[in-house]
Amino acid sequence: MARRSDHSREEIKEMALEAAVNILENEGSKGISARNVAKAIGYTVGTLYLVFENQRDMLLHLNALSLDDLDAWLEEHTGSGATPTENLLQLADAYISYAVEKSARWNLLFEIQVDESNELPDWYLMRLGRLFGRVESILSPLAKQHGELEIQRAARVLWAGVHGICMLKIRQRLTLAGGQSPNEMTKMLVDNFLEGFGK
Amino acid sequence: MARRSDHSREEIKEMALEAAVNILENEGSKGISARNVAKAIGYTVGTLYLVFENQRDMLLHLNALSLDDLDAWLEEHTGSGATPTENLLQLADAYISYAVEKSARWNLLFEIQVDESNELPDWYLMRLGRLFGRVESILSPLAKQHGELEIQRAARVLWAGVHGICMLKIRQRLTLAGGQSPNEMTKMLVDNFLEGFGK
Repeated sequence: MARRSDHSREEIKEMALEAAVNILENEGSKGISARNVAKAIGYTVGTLYLVFENQRDMLLHLNALSLDDLDAWLEEHTGSGATPTENLLQLADAYISYAVEKSARWNLLFEIQVDESNELPDWYLMRLGRLFGRVESILSPLAKQHGELEIQRAARVLWAGVHGICMLKIRQRLTLAGGQSPNEMTKMLVDNFLEGFGK
Repeated sequence: MARRSDHSREEIKEMALEAAVNILENEGSKGISARNVAKAIGYTVGTLYLVFENQRDMLLHLNALSLDDLDAWLEEHTGSGATPTENLLQLADAYISYAVEKSARWNLLFEIQVDESNELPDWYLMRLGRLFGRVESILSPLAKQHGELEIQRAARVLWAGVHGICMLKIRQRLTLAGGQSPNEMTKMLVDNFLEGFGK
């Protein structure tokens, strides 16, 4: 077992999160306990709780890393399309492929329920804002008649819609009558929404 | 402890599901184990597994009851609006209020992940189909130019969208810039989608 003096707090935090990502990807979220993470880096649970406030804080930091990972994925898997609709569909398809390819990390993003006494910290909200910013910047030129607030709202509504499709189709694997792929459903959503919103 | 001969299998099943609903509403999904349900009705876990195939089968039956409950809730909380848009918004608002008021039951509907070897049984799919049927019947007169399949698809896309809004706003309690209530987000989604789809 490593001695506390071997690593700084920042180093321990980084090692712990790296170990947590590994556990998450290999065993799913059930495997992520303070005990397992501490064991993986050769420290005690007590040391882990010197760098994280509690289990929830550790999971939020883990999810913040996933939001960074998702952001990089979206950057890598989208290009510059000819139209806003094309750009939105590229972004949505990239989101869907992340949810499929990295399902454990994507699932954990939505497993932490937030109650009234437990608002999300600023460093987490900043990352969410950055993701929505991708949608906003695509919508922005499309709807000249809308103010900034309306664009922000439309970005969130559209994204919640794409997210709902991912949830029901990927996590629940619903195979319902008229079954479309998540990408086809997203196209129907984006096309029709933009016809209304872009007018 | 009751003797097995006291109740028929059907009666035991019904008692178990009633007890499971109580546990779910009072303690959340974490409280629902075969042991707890069996204890609540005075039977052994072994007896419980004579009427349910396994834990998943018990949870699916519990969710089927919730789908019935949700269907009755939607019936009770919607009237006959003047326009299809109005009817859709009534239905969406009723769905949102169910998610808020009966959050434990609503959450459990989406906690069972379905894998490829574990498709949903027909009696469960029938109930999902009935719910989507509510959306289809509202959409049906609106879009005369669409075939039945397109109506089915639009119903699912819209509903996945409303569901995504519920998930992010109610379960995650996201308070993002430009924050709208779930009902306002739903209105934006439905209004813009229908402008495109209804044309």
